[in-house]
Amino acid sequence: MAVTARDVAQAAGVSQRTVSDVVNLPGRVGAETRKRVQAVIDELGYRPNPHARGLRNNRSGLIALVVPELDVPYFSDLARCLIPELTKRSLTLVVDQTNGDPERERAVLTGGAVSSTFDGVLLNALNLTAADVEAAAATQPIVLLGERDYGASADHVAIDGTEAAYAATRHLIERGCTRIGAIGRQARSTGTAKQRVDGFTRAMHEAGLDPNRYMAEGEYDRASGAAVMGEMLDAGDPPDGVFCFNDLMALGAMRAAWDRGVDIPRDLAVVGFDDIEDGRYAMRSLTTVAPDKEAIAREAVAMLVERVAGHVGPGRRVRAGFELIVRESSGPA
Amino acid sequence: MAVTARDVAQAAGVSQRTVSDVVNLPGRVGAETRKRVQAVIDELGYRPNPHARGLRNNRSGLIALVVPELDVPYFSDLARCLIPELTKRSLTLVVDQTNGDPERERAVLTGGAVSSTFDGVLLNALNLTAADVEAAAATQPIVLLGERDYGASADHVAIDGTEAAYAATRHLIERGCTRIGAIGRQARSTGTAKQRVDGFTRAMHEAGLDPNRYMAEGEYDRASGAAVMGEMLDAGDPPDGVFCFNDLMALGAMRAAWDRGVDIPRDLAVVGFDDIEDGRYAMRSLTTVAPDKEAIAREAVAMLVERVAGHVGPGRRVRAGFELIVRESSGPA
Repeated sequence: MAVTARDVAQAAGVSQRTVSDVVNLPGRVGAETRKRVQAVIDELGYRPNPHARGLRNNRSGLIALVVPELDVPYFSDLARCLIPELTKRSLTLVVDQTNGDPERERAVLTGGAVSSTFDGVLLNALNLTAADVEAAAATQPIVLLGERDYGASADHVAIDGTEAAYAATRHLIERGCTRIGAIGRQARSTGTAKQRVDGFTRAMHEAGLDPNRYMAEGEYDRASGAAVMGEMLDAGDPPDGVFCFNDLMALGAMRAAWDRGVDIPRDLAVVGFDDIEDGRYAMRSLTTVAPDKEAIAREAVAMLVERVAGHVGPGRRVRAGFELIVRESSGPA
Repeated sequence: MAVTARDVAQAAGVSQRTVSDVVNLPGRVGAETRKRVQAVIDELGYRPNPHARGLRNNRSGLIALVVPELDVPYFSDLARCLIPELTKRSLTLVVDQTNGDPERERAVLTGGAVSSTFDGVLLNALNLTAADVEAAAATQPIVLLGERDYGASADHVAIDGTEAAYAATRHLIERGCTRIGAIGRQARSTGTAKQRVDGFTRAMHEAGLDPNRYMAEGEYDRASGAAVMGEMLDAGDPPDGVFCFNDLMALGAMRAAWDRGVDIPRDLAVVGFDDIEDGRYAMRSLTTVAPDKEAIAREAVAMLVERVAGHVGPGRRVRAGFELIVRESSGPA
């Protein structure tokens, strides 16, 4: 038979109301009592009924992950890491896709079609203003994701995108590349792309190389990587190394090189970003920056759950780690 | 200012209750009235507030897509196709991952941790019994997905997996392959794998070839495709063509062939199943069976919305189409 709040209350020597508060409003319960009751909850395996919980305190048990595109492997990898973190707290992940549409991103945050449904939001937004984010974070639990400066005081988990781009570029330089390209700059970016451009530029300047010689815009998908790489290779005096700002563009770039008989890594070394599985099985396995997705998921959920439980205070910034994984695409020729 | 139910009621000359019924319980409204009110709803752009809707009739506006794994590209492709179909009905997609765990699949269906939250479920289950599915379909709106015989009377949308596997195998035979392998059989499968084995076996028998000579089990991921293909190639007298039961295994198999200096398609032609984007940019672009995912999404949502609106009756079976897309992996050598 399922363990009830009454069972927990009896075993812990507290009222059912206290058990309910520990589950739903832990900030209201003293630290010692909270600890004792939580220990009994864990020991008995008590799982609060989310429907009853919703009726009592207007919570749904649902956490939204709001991302620009669901079928980008980085986001589905991240969702896969988030699910166990949420499941052990009896929370369910809802994935909502915005296509980077600022109206839709705003709608999720401002009591539009869906926001009343969620207890909290993990937000990776492309086009929100700092004011949008500040206003939303003031009224509901939000944790921001992604290597960009939202310019807002809200909890935020990300790796250091500038350092990661610097490491990727240093690797190409140390390998002996001298004509190094970068694919993925964006015309008006204050976000992910800007950090990657900054890290790339710093490493190139330090090595006395021109960062702008082979710097190109890109759309973060395979088709764009293939098209941009194709143009670079067809233009004459092609690069001998390229840092693509995500793995999808790197995979497209490798395909374009392959189509032109350019040997990877002998004629062209390629580095990506994200460490998606696809890159591990490419015909030349892909060197890439691997963000610590488990850490991102763990830290983001921990902070969000604290906000849901009533924590107030200024936004916190957590840096997750990353690793440069060297594979065939930039290995020995 | 937002259009309200009152605006619609006035314009259509009906009560607000009737407008609400057209939105929430269309089965209760006469066909002519329903049509007239719906026309006004469309004209004025009325969007019912899902929170108020939830309060009135215990609906959340959430539809769950329940799949074994979120980070399988086929499922994220499918989710991408479902979102616009649901959005235009003011419904939100929730993705729930079961890992194929029968307990978790059952929990979603039987009033467990999450089912009370959803208006309806799109279910791709690996390990449920016919009795599980029948019981669940009797109490809540469900549409089944996936090329398997659930053995239950419930709405179901799928392509004909046997015919698709037959077409893939015929292609290898017509191309001139005579030592044709298949990767993806499963020991106890009554589902997807069984249909693909059946279609493969029929085509091989018709051509006077032995279907079992190079038939192997597989786990539907890249690592498994690479390992199984590696064994086939290392065993001596290797196949000259292989039908992998999904694209991920085909990509792994191509990588294993590449590692051994086996030229694709000259020495080995490879065909996959699913048409994920990854295959289009592989070093040999992948020949594959492309299910009509848009049609699957469209038909599944249409049937589910009817069930949510109160449609009763026996389970309906809808066949979506597929296409064999021939690319480099089985093209001219």
